Amino acid sequence: MAHYKKGADAERELIHLLFDKGFSVVRVAGSGKTALPAPDLLALHKSRILAFECKAWASDSIHLPVSQMQELLSWCERAGAEVFIAWKYPRRGWFFLKPEHFSKAEKNYSISLRHAVAKAIDLEVLTGRMAVLPH
Amino acid sequence: MAHYKKGADAERELIHLLFDKGFSVVRVAGSGKTALPAPDLLALHKSRILAFECKAWASDSIHLPVSQMQELLSWCERAGAEVFIAWKYPRRGWFFLKPEHFSKAEKNYSISLRHAVAKAIDLEVLTGRMAVLPH
Repeated sequence: MAHYKKGADAERELIHLLFDKGFSVVRVAGSGKTALPAPDLLALHKSRILAFECKAWASDSIHLPVSQMQELLSWCERAGAEVFIAWKYPRRGWFFLKPEHFSKAEKNYSISLRHAVAKAIDLEVLTGRMAVLPH
Repeated sequence: MAHYKKGADAERELIHLLFDKGFSVVRVAGSGKTALPAPDLLALHKSRILAFECKAWASDSIHLPVSQMQELLSWCERAGAEVFIAWKYPRRGWFFLKPEHFSKAEKNYSISLRHAVAKAIDLEVLTGRMAVLPH
């Protein structure tokens, strides 16, 4: 229950972050439980569709089973959605990651905290409010 | 509970109808219960966002409180979504209606079954698989 609550609190926080950037946000009913795979959250704005899989883990790395990542990717391709894995690290904030930031092993896609820190996309960039300039 | 179940069964049926037309479909968690208003279902395909408010009523007309319709319209405008009211009439199938098909009275937007039959949009047209030809 504590694990579930931590995940639910993180999702709620992300909903508000995205709402504040001008998106309409929904939590997907039964995500993670139903036969039909789907992301945890959707954020929509001007026909842009962002799909989020949320993780709230205080660990050295996060993992997604290969089957789950593949289902997520097919779901998003069918929808025309951009997919992000949103990792909430307690007291360090959010790391927004793309599937290509993960390494594939036999059973899991995974990324270390060190790589997540290096690769994470800024929320302002992700939501289209800022762009990374060449330097 | 019977009323809730009828609504849930209708939503499930609509999810499958839209999935069969190539859309990624989600049921929105806590729709109708949360402080944040949102439609019941979202169907997504190639950056097209369809939002559905579902009604499963065997009655001469359906009604939406003015406040609910207005919240639905603002939500969809923010999201860049097209909004439909999907009325499942037991043993007569689905009527897909636009907000402008409803008449506004003091407290409710409403539409009669007779008007719904006349105005309803074909699912093939709604999902972009067919177009109505001039005649």
